[in-house]
Amino acid sequence: MAAAAALAERARPLASPNPGVGAIIVKHGAVLARGWTMPGGRPHAEAVALEAAGEAASGATLYVTLEPCAHRSQRGPACADLISAAGLARVVVGMRDPDPRTAGDGIARIEAAGAQVATLDWTPACLGLSGHATQLAKGRPHVTLKLAMSLDGCIATCTGESQWITNSASRAHGHRERARADAILVGGGTLRADNPRLDVRLPGLEDRSPRRVALTSGKVPEGWQAIRSPEEIAALDGVRYLMVEGGAQTASAFLAAGLVDRLLIYRAPVLLGGGTPAIGHIGHDTLEKAFADGLNLLDRRQLGSDTLEVYQRA
Amino acid sequence: MAAAAALAERARPLASPNPGVGAIIVKHGAVLARGWTMPGGRPHAEAVALEAAGEAASGATLYVTLEPCAHRSQRGPACADLISAAGLARVVVGMRDPDPRTAGDGIARIEAAGAQVATLDWTPACLGLSGHATQLAKGRPHVTLKLAMSLDGCIATCTGESQWITNSASRAHGHRERARADAILVGGGTLRADNPRLDVRLPGLEDRSPRRVALTSGKVPEGWQAIRSPEEIAALDGVRYLMVEGGAQTASAFLAAGLVDRLLIYRAPVLLGGGTPAIGHIGHDTLEKAFADGLNLLDRRQLGSDTLEVYQRA
Repeated sequence: MAAAAALAERARPLASPNPGVGAIIVKHGAVLARGWTMPGGRPHAEAVALEAAGEAASGATLYVTLEPCAHRSQRGPACADLISAAGLARVVVGMRDPDPRTAGDGIARIEAAGAQVATLDWTPACLGLSGHATQLAKGRPHVTLKLAMSLDGCIATCTGESQWITNSASRAHGHRERARADAILVGGGTLRADNPRLDVRLPGLEDRSPRRVALTSGKVPEGWQAIRSPEEIAALDGVRYLMVEGGAQTASAFLAAGLVDRLLIYRAPVLLGGGTPAIGHIGHDTLEKAFADGLNLLDRRQLGSDTLEVYQRA
Repeated sequence: MAAAAALAERARPLASPNPGVGAIIVKHGAVLARGWTMPGGRPHAEAVALEAAGEAASGATLYVTLEPCAHRSQRGPACADLISAAGLARVVVGMRDPDPRTAGDGIARIEAAGAQVATLDWTPACLGLSGHATQLAKGRPHVTLKLAMSLDGCIATCTGESQWITNSASRAHGHRERARADAILVGGGTLRADNPRLDVRLPGLEDRSPRRVALTSGKVPEGWQAIRSPEEIAALDGVRYLMVEGGAQTASAFLAAGLVDRLLIYRAPVLLGGGTPAIGHIGHDTLEKAFADGLNLLDRRQLGSDTLEVYQRA
């Protein structure tokens, strides 16, 4: 399933707004075929893998990060039907599909055809489908907030100097995260001050530059979209993964609205002292309230002398 | 040498103001004897280990974290002479002694007696002798600054609530660090606001509670010592390890004065947003100045959900 979750990552964000899924077919301990959701969302990962395996799929085990779909569409047959027809012995599902068109029907149909199904609801599989799950549960994109700061939580010195606190490895990692998002958002202040390109400046990924959104009541340049409150992200058509890049006021607005699902903190080993705080008021006037908004450490890695920490809302 | 460095830790802070040293005698791959500096500073680690090894020390190897002393005193013979008399084959030295009474003479005398000497200047051995080295190089104690903060660098919410941001494991670790110090310092504000006990509240270590010092121009309670500027730590008689515990103004004063050698950051997985910053202005108005004050990550460990990072001035 870990290998299937890694394949799912290849589908992101090109499959958007469809969920990026990974699939592997294994027989007698060997990998027969692999698949992931194709750009635009079709064919699905299972269809790709089954096509590659051909008749050998009979009696094999399919690992797939998301419950196979039960809905037939003009764009292709339901994966549950394809799987049933292929005569698989066993299907291991990473996450049950919250989409009401499937929601257990995919699993039921496969079981009815005689294959064993195990559903794991396994964290790495679920994490790779968080955009899909958030859209269905909350009707809005999954939001990642990126903060780049000093050890004492500053994003600029007391004179406003901020380029660069974090090192080039951190910034390259930030560009990789951009490449995984459907849209990037900054505040009106950052837009006017920095006129940021918000593109992906990584060799081979330049074409992945996501849509640009500003949180502002003012005007935005051509090619940008404006929203006036964090809640308006629900209306960003086709966006499943949104990355919020700052500044401090925008970060605070999203945190105060409870609209941050995932937090990336790039931290440089430096003290600024009396600089610009990374975030302003977010309604945490008591420690009880602050801790109620629980954050779990998902990942920590060293990027040269900087440290990246990834937190997820509990 | 790692084992000798671990033994040296047992001498801290009881050997103070003498350096806490560790020594191990090894022969034919087996440990013959161990020693560390006794409370008050005598006997020295080598003398303890040689006494325990007896005649078997002949032909053995001694690992000792600090160069054996060359100065004869009323309190005991020079370790260089003891080692020469014991007929050791080899002596491995963790750090050359910067004390002008020894400073290479210890090694020279042992070599003259026929033993091989290797000097490592090995970081873990040096770290355990940083109080001794700082006193000789700079004429002041080695300073550790402790900061307990949120992910965004705050030590209190916007309403001033601060107890407790970090968890009980972090606080217990902080008490262990207190037990390793000769003196603890807080600012006048913290003294008046919290009237802190600054004792070591760990079972079995209650008697280790270090001397209490306040950075203040005001009065201090009985049993406390007052200094009026960070620079006055040079006059703290017999103090080799000083722990600075805050508040923010005191932390900033020590950082601005360039008087922090080691930084402990206890960080809780919580965002406070608009709270009290852990430090104020420290003269880092440009990033160039901030990075010139280089900090190296020495250690990072998880304390439950909190993280402790230990930084050392480059």
